[in-house]
Amino acid sequence: MAIVLGPNRYGKAETRLVRVHRDGDTHGLVDFNVSVALSGDLAATHLTGDNSHVLPTDSMKNTVYAFAKQHGVAEPETFALLLARHFVETQDHVDSARVTVESFAWDRLGPHSFQRRGDHTRTTVVTVTRETTQVVSGVTGLVLMNTTASEFHGFVKDRYTTLPETTERILATAVDAKWRHLSDTADWDKSFQGALDAMTNAFVNTYSLSLQQTLLSMGTSVLSSRPELAEVRLALPNKHHYLVDLSPFGLANDNEVFIAGDRPYGLIEGTVTRDDVPPASAEWYL
Amino acid sequence: MAIVLGPNRYGKAETRLVRVHRDGDTHGLVDFNVSVALSGDLAATHLTGDNSHVLPTDSMKNTVYAFAKQHGVAEPETFALLLARHFVETQDHVDSARVTVESFAWDRLGPHSFQRRGDHTRTTVVTVTRETTQVVSGVTGLVLMNTTASEFHGFVKDRYTTLPETTERILATAVDAKWRHLSDTADWDKSFQGALDAMTNAFVNTYSLSLQQTLLSMGTSVLSSRPELAEVRLALPNKHHYLVDLSPFGLANDNEVFIAGDRPYGLIEGTVTRDDVPPASAEWYL
Amino acid sequence: MAIVLGPNRYGKAETRLVRVHRDGDTHGLVDFNVSVALSGDLAATHLTGDNSHVLPTDSMKNTVYAFAKQHGVAEPETFALLLARHFVETQDHVDSARVTVESFAWDRLGPHSFQRRGDHTRTTVVTVTRETTQVVSGVTGLVLMNTTASEFHGFVKDRYTTLPETTERILATAVDAKWRHLSDTADWDKSFQGALDAMTNAFVNTYSLSLQQTLLSMGTSVLSSRPELAEVRLALPNKHHYLVDLSPFGLANDNEVFIAGDRPYGLIEGTVTRDDVPPASAEWYL
Amino acid sequence: MAIVLGPNRYGKAETRLVRVHRDGDTHGLVDFNVSVALSGDLAATHLTGDNSHVLPTDSMKNTVYAFAKQHGVAEPETFALLLARHFVETQDHVDSARVTVESFAWDRLGPHSFQRRGDHTRTTVVTVTRETTQVVSGVTGLVLMNTTASEFHGFVKDRYTTLPETTERILATAVDAKWRHLSDTADWDKSFQGALDAMTNAFVNTYSLSLQQTLLSMGTSVLSSRPELAEVRLALPNKHHYLVDLSPFGLANDNEVFIAGDRPYGLIEGTVTRDDVPPASAEWYL
Repeated sequence: MAIVLGPNRYGKAETRLVRVHRDGDTHGLVDFNVSVALSGDLAATHLTGDNSHVLPTDSMKNTVYAFAKQHGVAEPETFALLLARHFVETQDHVDSARVTVESFAWDRLGPHSFQRRGDHTRTTVVTVTRETTQVVSGVTGLVLMNTTASEFHGFVKDRYTTLPETTERILATAVDAKWRHLSDTADWDKSFQGALDAMTNAFVNTYSLSLQQTLLSMGTSVLSSRPELAEVRLALPNKHHYLVDLSPFGLANDNEVFIAGDRPYGLIEGTVTRDDVPPASAEWYL
Repeated sequence: MAIVLGPNRYGKAETRLVRVHRDGDTHGLVDFNVSVALSGDLAATHLTGDNSHVLPTDSMKNTVYAFAKQHGVAEPETFALLLARHFVETQDHVDSARVTVESFAWDRLGPHSFQRRGDHTRTTVVTVTRETTQVVSGVTGLVLMNTTASEFHGFVKDRYTTLPETTERILATAVDAKWRHLSDTADWDKSFQGALDAMTNAFVNTYSLSLQQTLLSMGTSVLSSRPELAEVRLALPNKHHYLVDLSPFGLANDNEVFIAGDRPYGLIEGTVTRDDVPPASAEWYL
Repeated sequence: MAIVLGPNRYGKAETRLVRVHRDGDTHGLVDFNVSVALSGDLAATHLTGDNSHVLPTDSMKNTVYAFAKQHGVAEPETFALLLARHFVETQDHVDSARVTVESFAWDRLGPHSFQRRGDHTRTTVVTVTRETTQVVSGVTGLVLMNTTASEFHGFVKDRYTTLPETTERILATAVDAKWRHLSDTADWDKSFQGALDAMTNAFVNTYSLSLQQTLLSMGTSVLSSRPELAEVRLALPNKHHYLVDLSPFGLANDNEVFIAGDRPYGLIEGTVTRDDVPPASAEWYL
Repeated sequence: MAIVLGPNRYGKAETRLVRVHRDGDTHGLVDFNVSVALSGDLAATHLTGDNSHVLPTDSMKNTVYAFAKQHGVAEPETFALLLARHFVETQDHVDSARVTVESFAWDRLGPHSFQRRGDHTRTTVVTVTRETTQVVSGVTGLVLMNTTASEFHGFVKDRYTTLPETTERILATAVDAKWRHLSDTADWDKSFQGALDAMTNAFVNTYSLSLQQTLLSMGTSVLSSRPELAEVRLALPNKHHYLVDLSPFGLANDNEVFIAGDRPYGLIEGTVTRDDVPPASAEWYL
């Protein structure tokens, strides 16, 4: 019996990059949060502090900024692929590079003026090894609500069940979704916007008997409309809105006045996938 | 010499209200965070725990929800006035009621479907006493950036100054602004949108030699275009974007690649006011 | 009628300073978050962008770090006084300097090893003008709970009151307190610890009929035991713990099982003061 | 080719439980944040909204509170096991139950008075299936610093490397660690405290040539001293402290004055394991 080093990785997290592209008087703006994680033959630094296989995380940060100048920055997937490939190709001891990007959208107010949008964050997680390349895109912080067209009944009643059945409730969630691409080339912006629209449309148009049903509808909508995608993972908090009991004040409440709850919340998680696609080459949830 | 009770107030903070207005199949949605604070003859509860002058904060919460049903909810200023007046009028021992509302905007996706916007939060602080009514409106979390048209030079150099002068920098801020109304009646939505537009336009169109200059321009723009307002207070963090030194990599950086800093940040605060208006009747910064 | 510049200030916020003091092999550690705000003759930069009266906020940051080396850092009040006086004394156009410090405590684990404590943050706000010096100390994030010895009854019942009276409840709060010193010299560490102990002891030992009663008791305890203090301001959120109704499961709940609520919360704010002290020379709540 | 439902689960997240145990006048206090996730035969609710296999998340919340009364609450692992087993045993369609608990420590101030500690959060993740039981314990938010005894040199230099080698730096991290137990019975409190002490001691006593070396030392220390544990996973952010360049002010900086950085940060992640233990029965990172 021995105590041994298991799976490990290291990198620089949350390098905040703002890239201005100047086309005469009209400027473009890209705002990213970039994280890099490398794994490979890293036993020595763990065992003895021998860093001869360790590229400093500071150098990863420098690479992000230098690449932003050398190559420009547009789609997060493209930039993440560029970075991940660079680390695998130039570092002999690195077997795998994972680059994660959060992309923050800004609306144009003028030739060089912008307002941060704030309604959601676009994400990507790219994992490159010597044999494989995997691209995952996604979104976080997309908060959606249907004020009706949601029911919940017919559920299990155990001895701890007090929830009344309902044919009318608010359904609200903050979408955290990721989807895996089949290829490492795509029109990434178009693909992202298409997936976002498909997901949002499914939320809007599904008459919901459970948030699970809505989740599957959203995932199916994405895969149906985006042939370039293999699978979708959704984590949907059920942001509860509690109907206020106004009867003590002699008032009815016909689904009009709600408490927006913080905690606890339901959490519905699920994967929707094609049944004939190759498996993921790297874990893409973490 | 004695130890005595000084100024005090109490109330219920952060009552989360979602109000759905149903007009046939088309629903309206209002999403508020409401805080109430009352002051008056409250010595007894402090001194002896005699609560005979104390309306429970739980009742304030109930009032928020009941009023949302009875009166409906549209403009935050109107709802805050209704609540504040109610507490002063119905509670003999209350001299002053302050109601604060944060209003979260949602974009319509369908007849009963919405997406939370997230680009800024509209605020109001209403203070009602037996003699006076004061309405303050405002905005928080409005993040703006100019990628050029900003300089900073000619400043004081002391022995701790190392900052180089620049004729080209990014100017970015997260606007936290409040403005005091001259009256307690207005077209509140129109007034808010007008103030927001005036402020944003001034940010966009000011060629800036200092964030202070931009601040005064923003406040002046609001007061020039909104005769219903007495004064504006702005707190503008200078969200620093540091030019990355790419010279070690043989690269120039012509104001293209920036580090978006977290801390520290500059903080520019100022009031812009008309010189002939009555003073505020209640502190409106807290 | 004209639109004019009103009160204003500017500075560098949240300069994060870690200072190691080396006494042979045994190290001392100070961990501060320092904010500086200056006011004075600053009209020119607002009106025309003339920065000839503007010390860059970057220089303020540099001063924090340079002073940490030159003078060492121990008590936050002493360090804040040093900085505030420096800016007033060396900058002709500055009338007032306010320095705010958050101090984070670390427990010693070894000669050069430490663990961050996290149970509260010590604060100070020092304001220096050409004529006056004001020192305020305080604490935030001190979370206290009594699981009994708290009642709430005898309160006003209006038409929106549904809260039952109780002779047994949890009383919990997150103390946010500030206290103003009468002088600009003191044994600051001893004074802070004494005030903290007095406040905590009063919370523990007060049989409470209202959180207001507890607040006055806490403030009085501080002033009674600390003659160097003029007044205390307390903001005490009433962190509600709701008794769970277990009757549907055939279980009693004798004040044993509670929901810890997030929002809304009560908010009790009050000042306790000596009746014979000079007034504050500068606003100390903001 | 078809689009199908993949792995999924659902539950109630962040049920906030405060449990008071009354032993005469002396009270005990337990403060938990409990999350439940169930998986099993849940296809129907996804496909058609048929909820006949769905126990409401509201019932899970009720179960947490009812069990807190029926069984009392002490060690988080015990409580999590109780809950997880309950759901698998009583719900025919549930194959797996995962219960996560965050436990917040309070220091005693009196027989019924407490102060929240805040220096770290104890965690547990228990996963129960019909065949297996897996218990993971852990800690988050444990912030540690060595002000010396840390070097970093001998690393790879690529064309983007500018970091100087150093034989003297601050090493600081916020430990996020989890460890998997070999059995489902233990003296959980003693095991937790032992693991925490082993980990902290290793951090303090390791002369570090890289944070990776410290990580392996910490994990090895835990496994060496706790035979009941199979493996440890550590995620250690390298909380950078940048030496301030004081030379422009004519000052030396002998590792005394540092900027505590926010972002970016290094992130070192690794697993330390025994080489002869059975594999995990369920994913324990998510």
